[in-house]
Amino acid sequence: MTTDALVLDAAAQDLLFREARTANTFSDEPVTEEQIQAIYELVKYGPTAFNAQPMRVVLVRSDEARGRLVEHMMDGNKAKTLSAPLVAILAVDNEFHEELPTQLPHFPQAKDLFFTERPVRESTATLNGALQAGYFIVGVRAAGLAAGPMTGFNAAGINKEFFADGEHSVLAVVNIGKPGEDAWFPRSPRLAYDEVVTTV
Amino acid sequence: MTTDALVLDAAAQDLLFREARTANTFSDEPVTEEQIQAIYELVKYGPTAFNAQPMRVVLVRSDEARGRLVEHMMDGNKAKTLSAPLVAILAVDNEFHEELPTQLPHFPQAKDLFFTERPVRESTATLNGALQAGYFIVGVRAAGLAAGPMTGFNAAGINKEFFADGEHSVLAVVNIGKPGEDAWFPRSPRLAYDEVVTTV
Repeated sequence: MTTDALVLDAAAQDLLFREARTANTFSDEPVTEEQIQAIYELVKYGPTAFNAQPMRVVLVRSDEARGRLVEHMMDGNKAKTLSAPLVAILAVDNEFHEELPTQLPHFPQAKDLFFTERPVRESTATLNGALQAGYFIVGVRAAGLAAGPMTGFNAAGINKEFFADGEHSVLAVVNIGKPGEDAWFPRSPRLAYDEVVTTV
Repeated sequence: MTTDALVLDAAAQDLLFREARTANTFSDEPVTEEQIQAIYELVKYGPTAFNAQPMRVVLVRSDEARGRLVEHMMDGNKAKTLSAPLVAILAVDNEFHEELPTQLPHFPQAKDLFFTERPVRESTATLNGALQAGYFIVGVRAAGLAAGPMTGFNAAGINKEFFADGEHSVLAVVNIGKPGEDAWFPRSPRLAYDEVVTTV
């Protein structure tokens, strides 16, 4: 039943959701710049409120930067953050409204009408940046790669270390690569439809 | 270049991201319970921190409930919220941690170790619920439907009206259906890769 009611082909369903899993170990195969560009050029089209597009991505490619990042990860996440072929910091730019005059050409006043206060910008950035992080994880899988998103870290430490301007907030750190040996934990349960969806 | 580096086939890329658009008008064709079930049964597999799965969906199917919802929408969103075949309220359950003993069987202590304080639960619910909202929007498109996500509403009003327990927070309201006449605004620009992605 579940497949018949969808238009997306079954192989794509498996690739993006059903067989895709959060990887805990990775092979040595590198993740290329071309792959990340292709992921971004696809998922950039995912919708955000006011076309705000607050998500920013920092690809941690140098050993030096990886060392600085691992310092701020919780102990249980350090080993896999060290061993993943590529680590991406997903953050938001809390000054995203500066881009609205070009990104929202039919309503450039939005910048001054709605976003003069930092707390409003922060909540808009967090909500829409997390939406985009969802699209990004789907995009990583669309590239045939496994994503290992993590939120176990010292956010203030990462923000200070990687975003010296004080205008960015980390949302998640994502390990990316081809899965390695014993990459998967047993899949955890999911809530049943009736536990999640109600009708009024 | 962008397509070659992805494994997902081009038709699925178009369906989910490239040709999919936020619809502003809809046809009369109903959205069935079977379609929403199929969407959920697919996107439920998207990862969340601690397998928290905080997103809850309220399908607004009765005229009475739709009337109550429209009251709390911003003026510019009222007409399309009234005319969409189906409207879904995407919210989070800030008491999601009560489900962890069954949903995170390898680490049931997480409930009491990390989530005793409401503000921590709220920020975890918002971040992961928004990730799930991203998966859900992709899922709506996987069903061959258009999604029209909106954040222009009185959140406190919707929370009080639809979630009397005080434990849920609305994230977005999403119109769902087949696109109607003149459904699309011209597509707004997207930030370039180099504006979003940096390497360290």
